[in-house]
Amino acid sequence: MNALSHHDITVLLFSLAILLATARLLGEAAQKLRQPAIIGEILAGILLGPTVLGAIAPDAHAAIFPHSGPVAIGMHSLTTVAIVLFLMVAGMEVDLSTVWKQGRAAIIVAVVCMVLPFAIGFVPGWFAPDALGAKPGSDPLVFGLFLATAMAITALPVIARILLDLNLFRTDVGTTIIAAAILNDLFGWIIFALVLALMGGAGTGHGVGQTAALTLTFAILMLTVGRALVNRVLPWVQAHTGWPGGVLAFALTLTLLCAAYTEFIGVHGIFGSFLFGVALGDSPHLRRRTRTTIDHFVSFIFAPLFFASIGLRVDFLQHLDIPLVLVILLLATVGKVGGGFLAARWAGFATNEARAIGFGMNARGAMEIILGLLALDAGIIGERLFVALVIMALITSLASAVFLQRAFPRARAVRFVDFVNPKSFVPDLGANGRLDALARLARLAAEAAGINPDAAVNAVCRREDIVSSAIGRGVAIPHARLPGLKQPSLAVGISAEGIDFDPPDGIPVSVVILILTPVDAAAVHLAVLADIARSFRTDRVSRAAAERARNLTEFRAVLNVEGSRPPEP
Amino acid sequence: MNALSHHDITVLLFSLAILLATARLLGEAAQKLRQPAIIGEILAGILLGPTVLGAIAPDAHAAIFPHSGPVAIGMHSLTTVAIVLFLMVAGMEVDLSTVWKQGRAAIIVAVVCMVLPFAIGFVPGWFAPDALGAKPGSDPLVFGLFLATAMAITALPVIARILLDLNLFRTDVGTTIIAAAILNDLFGWIIFALVLALMGGAGTGHGVGQTAALTLTFAILMLTVGRALVNRVLPWVQAHTGWPGGVLAFALTLTLLCAAYTEFIGVHGIFGSFLFGVALGDSPHLRRRTRTTIDHFVSFIFAPLFFASIGLRVDFLQHLDIPLVLVILLLATVGKVGGGFLAARWAGFATNEARAIGFGMNARGAMEIILGLLALDAGIIGERLFVALVIMALITSLASAVFLQRAFPRARAVRFVDFVNPKSFVPDLGANGRLDALARLARLAAEAAGINPDAAVNAVCRREDIVSSAIGRGVAIPHARLPGLKQPSLAVGISAEGIDFDPPDGIPVSVVILILTPVDAAAVHLAVLADIARSFRTDRVSRAAAERARNLTEFRAVLNVEGSRPPEP
Repeated sequence: MNALSHHDITVLLFSLAILLATARLLGEAAQKLRQPAIIGEILAGILLGPTVLGAIAPDAHAAIFPHSGPVAIGMHSLTTVAIVLFLMVAGMEVDLSTVWKQGRAAIIVAVVCMVLPFAIGFVPGWFAPDALGAKPGSDPLVFGLFLATAMAITALPVIARILLDLNLFRTDVGTTIIAAAILNDLFGWIIFALVLALMGGAGTGHGVGQTAALTLTFAILMLTVGRALVNRVLPWVQAHTGWPGGVLAFALTLTLLCAAYTEFIGVHGIFGSFLFGVALGDSPHLRRRTRTTIDHFVSFIFAPLFFASIGLRVDFLQHLDIPLVLVILLLATVGKVGGGFLAARWAGFATNEARAIGFGMNARGAMEIILGLLALDAGIIGERLFVALVIMALITSLASAVFLQRAFPRARAVRFVDFVNPKSFVPDLGANGRLDALARLARLAAEAAGINPDAAVNAVCRREDIVSSAIGRGVAIPHARLPGLKQPSLAVGISAEGIDFDPPDGIPVSVVILILTPVDAAAVHLAVLADIARSFRTDRVSRAAAERARNLTEFRAVLNVEGSRPPEP
Repeated sequence: MNALSHHDITVLLFSLAILLATARLLGEAAQKLRQPAIIGEILAGILLGPTVLGAIAPDAHAAIFPHSGPVAIGMHSLTTVAIVLFLMVAGMEVDLSTVWKQGRAAIIVAVVCMVLPFAIGFVPGWFAPDALGAKPGSDPLVFGLFLATAMAITALPVIARILLDLNLFRTDVGTTIIAAAILNDLFGWIIFALVLALMGGAGTGHGVGQTAALTLTFAILMLTVGRALVNRVLPWVQAHTGWPGGVLAFALTLTLLCAAYTEFIGVHGIFGSFLFGVALGDSPHLRRRTRTTIDHFVSFIFAPLFFASIGLRVDFLQHLDIPLVLVILLLATVGKVGGGFLAARWAGFATNEARAIGFGMNARGAMEIILGLLALDAGIIGERLFVALVIMALITSLASAVFLQRAFPRARAVRFVDFVNPKSFVPDLGANGRLDALARLARLAAEAAGINPDAAVNAVCRREDIVSSAIGRGVAIPHARLPGLKQPSLAVGISAEGIDFDPPDGIPVSVVILILTPVDAAAVHLAVLADIARSFRTDRVSRAAAERARNLTEFRAVLNVEGSRPPEP
C-alpha cells in the first residue's frame, strides 16, 4: 500500500469537508452564545463520531469515517500536522515578558495554582489509580503524575479569548490570569513531557533517564539559546527572502523539525512545536501580519479539524462514567478555583477579583483535551477517564466564561444596523441633493416605526438646516428625536455618486444613516452614534459600502468585514 | 492499521520539514535569478528523490521518504489536499471579466493558441503513441487527446507572476496574454476532465458517457448557477459569522466538497476545486484579505510541498529520454509560440509584441506538471513521457521569463540600502539635535567611501542650512554631491527619541538617511531619492525602523516587510 485509491481520495476529501463544516458551524454557534468555539468543535466530533452518527447510522458512519485503512491513516496524518501547528500558535501566545511585568502577584497565583492542584491530583491518582480510570496495569506513579498535571494545567488560548471578549484583557485581573496561565502552561507541558519520558519513551529505544534528560535539555535550550537565535536569524530571513513566503516557511520548517525531534526522543511532537512557538512568538521581529496569517489558518481550519476529529475516536456515551466525571470535576475545580482565590487574596486582590481569578484559572479548554488524548494514546489512561477529562475541560471553560461574564457584566454592545429594517435600506440614493435623500430616508424610517412620515421629514430637515450632519469619511447621520417612538428606527441610503453634504473633510457622502430616536432615550441615541463612529473609522468603509452593498445583508457584511479589521500596528 | 506509530510520526514530520525547507530555499533562489519559484521547487524534489539522494544514499532516502507504508499514505494525503487547494487558488485568478474586457484580440489569441497546439499534439499522439511514450496498451484516441491537451495548456499562475515581476501586467501585451491564458486554462481543464472521463472513470462504476455528461454538467453549472449562488451567499456568510473564520471555512469546505464530487464522478478532485475557485474568485464580495490569507498559506506552504513531492515519485535520470524531450519541446513550442505569434499579428499587434505574446503563452509551468502527474496516475502515460513533460514545462517557463525580460528590459531597481555600508549604520543617534546627527553620519559615509570626512560634513551642513532635509513621515535625507566619489555612499541613523528637523508634517524624524553622491551622477541620485520615497510611503515604516532596527540587516528586514506590504485597496 503506497498511495490512496480513487475511492480513498473521495472519502478523505468528503470527510474533511463534513468535519470542517460541522466544526465551524457549531463553533460559530458557541461563539454567538458567548462561549469558547472549542465547545462547539468538540460537539461536532461527538455528533459525527460513534457517539451519535455511529449509533444512528453505523453504515454511513463507517463509510464516511472509516476506522482503519488508508483514509484513517490520511486523516491521522492531517490531524497530527494540525495539532503540531496549533501548539505552535499556542506557544506564540506565551509572552514571558508579561509574566515579569506582572511580577509578584502573577508568580504567587501561578505557583499556588500549580502546586495545589498538582497535589490534589497526585495523591488520589497514586493511591487509587483504578478507581480514577487508569489503564489497567499502568504504573501508579506515572498515573499519579499524569493526573496531577491534568489538574494543574490551564488553557491559555481559551482564557485569553474569554478575557478579550469581555474586554478584561488589559485589567489587573486579566493580566494576572494571563501571566499565571502562561507559567502554568509552560511548566505543565514540561512536566507532562517528563511524564511521557517516564513511560520509557515508548518504543524509541531511549531509556527513561535519557529521554528525561534530553527533554529537559531541549526545553532549557529552546527557552534560552533557541529564543536568542530565532531573534537573531529572523531579521536576516526577512531581509533576504521574499515576504511573507520566507518567514512562513522558516517558521513552519522549524516547527516541524522541533516536533520531529521531540517525537524522536520519546515525548510527543507537540511539545517541540509548543516550545518553538514560545521562542518565535517572543521575538519582536516577528511581524503581526505573519503571525496573523499563520494564526488564521491554524485557528480557523486546522484547530477545528483537530478538535472535531477527537469525537470521531471515542464513543462518549459508552464510556461515560458520571461518578468519575463528578470526581474529576470536583478535584479540578477545588484545586484551581480554591488555589486561585487564596493566592489572589494573599497577593492583595479584593474578594470578588480573587474569585474571578480563581474561575479564570479553572478554564481547561484545549490543553486538557490534548493532554488527555496523548495520555490515551500512550496507554496511561482508559477511555472512561478520557471522556471525563474532556467533559471536565468543557464544563470548566464554560463555567469560566459564564462566571466572568456575570462578575464583570458588560452591556451588550449596541449595533446600529440592528435598528435598520431591511425595507429601510436604499441602495441607489442617487445624487439628487441632500434634501431629497433626507426626505426619502425619513419617510422609510418613520413608516418602519409606524409613526407619521411627514413629521419625521420635517424634523430631520429642520435639524439639517441648522448644521450639516456630515461627519466626514463619506458618512452623514441626519437625526431627529420624535415623540411616539418606542425604540430607534434607522434608515440607510447609499449613493455611489456621492452627495454634497458639505462634509468637514471634503469627502463626498456615500452613506447616509438617518436616525430617529425617542425623545427620552439619550443613552441609546449616544450608543447608536458611538457605534456608527466606531464602524466608520476610515473612509474605506463607506467606499466599500458604496461599491458592494446592494441590500441590508451586504451592508452588514461590509461592516463586519471592514469593521473587524484590526487597526494598523 | 489505523494510526501512525510513534516512529511514523517522527518520519512524517521530519520529511515534511526537509521537503518544505529545500523547496522554499531553491524556490527563493530561483526567484533571486528572476525565474519562477516552481523551477526551484521541482528541483528540490529531484534532489531529495530517487534521482539524486536515492542514488547517493539509498538507505537514508528510504528511511526519510519511505515508498510505501503509513508514512507514504500520510504524505500522499497531505499532498492531495495541497494540490486541491492550489488549484482552488489558481481558479481564483481566473477572472472571466478580463477576457470580455480584452475582447477580440484575446479571443483570437486564445482560440488559435488552443486549436493549433491541440492539432499539433493530437495527430502524432494518435498515430504514434508508442514512440511518444504512451503507456503500452493505452487507447490511442485517449492518448492523442491527452497529448493534444498537454500541448494546448498554458500555466496562468506562472505567466501572471512573470508579467507582474516585469511590470507588464497592465500593458496591452500583458492583459492579452492573461486573458488568452485564462480561456486556455479553463477549456484545457474541461477537455482534460473529459479525457479522464473517457478512461471510463477508472473503477468508480460510472460509464464513459455518464462521467462525461456529469463532468460537463458540473462545469456548466459551476460557471453559471454556482457562480451566482456563491456571490449571493458570500455576503450572508460575512454578515452573520465571525470574520475571517467564517469565510475561510466556507471557502475551504466548498472546495473540498466540489473536489470530492469530481473525484467521485471519475475525474480528478482538482477539477472541482479549480472550478469552485473560479466561481469564488469572481465574486466582488470576496475580500482581498481573505484571498491573501488563503493565497499565502497555499502558495508558500502547500504548493512547494506538492511540487517537491513530485520529484520523490520518479527517477528523472533513469527515465530521461532525450530525443523524446526534444520532440515534446519542439511540438510544444511550435504550437504555442507560432500560434501566439500568428494570432497576435492577425489581431493587429506589432512584430515584437506578437513574439512576446507567443513566448508568454508558451509558459507551461505548474499546470503541465499537474496534468502529467494525473495522466501518469491514470495510466495514460509512462514515466518516460512524464519526465519529458516536466522538463518541457520547466524549460518553456524559463524561456518565457528570459525572453520577456530581454524583450522588455527594465533597469534593475536601484535600492538605496545597497549603498549603505554596515558600519555606516548608527542605531542610536540620540536626540542631540540635527547638526550633531549630520556630522556623525557624514563622517561615516565619507570614511566608507574613502574621501575627506571634513569636506563631507561641511558640504552637508551648508546644504542643510538653506532648507531642512526632512521630507515628512519621520524621515530626513540630508545630501551633498562631492567630487572624488565613484558611486553613492549612504549612512543611516536611527533616533528612537526623534530629532527636530522642522519636518513638513510635524512628525519627529526617527530615520536619517545621509546621501553623498558623485557630482556627475544625477540619474543615480534621483533613483536613490525615488527609492527612499517609495520605501517610506507611510510613517509606519520609520516608526517600525525606530522600534526594531539595531543593525543594517534588521533595517533591511523592516524595509522588506513593511515596504512589500500591498497598498490598501
